[in-house]
Amino acid sequence: MGKSITRARRSECPINIALEIFGDSWSLLVIRDLLFHEQRTFNEFQKSAEGIASNVLADRLARLEAAGIIIKSENASDARRYDYRLTDKGVALAPVLIEIIVWSAQYEETDPAPGAARKMSAQRKKFLALLRKKLVV
Amino acid sequence: MGKSITRARRSECPINIALEIFGDSWSLLVIRDLLFHEQRTFNEFQKSAEGIASNVLADRLARLEAAGIIIKSENASDARRYDYRLTDKGVALAPVLIEIIVWSAQYEETDPAPGAARKMSAQRKKFLALLRKKLVV
Repeated sequence: MGKSITRARRSECPINIALEIFGDSWSLLVIRDLLFHEQRTFNEFQKSAEGIASNVLADRLARLEAAGIIIKSENASDARRYDYRLTDKGVALAPVLIEIIVWSAQYEETDPAPGAARKMSAQRKKFLALLRKKLVV
Repeated sequence: MGKSITRARRSECPINIALEIFGDSWSLLVIRDLLFHEQRTFNEFQKSAEGIASNVLADRLARLEAAGIIIKSENASDARRYDYRLTDKGVALAPVLIEIIVWSAQYEETDPAPGAARKMSAQRKKFLALLRKKLVV
């Protein structure tokens, strides 16, 4: 359940397999928007500060859906649009993103300030439990 | 100190900045080889199962060095070759890789088995302390 469609992998290393799924410079931004920013539609993802191109966004949404990380459903008010949400497999990426935030805030010039990231790190378990409660249906 | 050379970022989000540094399908494999597989030369990285092309490997090593994640020094026995090692900033990526391993082993068909990854996860602190002791000079 929740496994990606099997195809030739470069190797069976868990890091490699993860990178074959989300190892690009955009996929984890979509997951970030779903996890932390309560965004759920194509238009919302597209408005994020990084300025993802619509063809790239469409490709990444399709790939994340094929990998069982996100799932889409018809928008309640507009049947031509989709709402996206994270699956359990997608929410389970939260610890990866948190460790990236902690690292990046420590070693790069980022916003928010390192203090906020350190707090997120120190209260990792509490923070993750709250996220899961909010996102896992 | 240890900050990357400043250039136009897509945004100041810590996840985005990290992805601008290592958000591709190869960079974290080189970091994996340095962290867990005790590899340190161009030839050793190139022999990893994923079969990285030499031009891609050269590009990623240069980028990781520019970002202050790895550092190179002349090989003791052959001055035409370089040995690479992780800086403190590079070793600090270990928690990111561990969370990726834990996620991947849980949701994908990987080698090693999920049991090993769960153990790594449960003994995270001990495992990270050992890694740091081995790698930080």
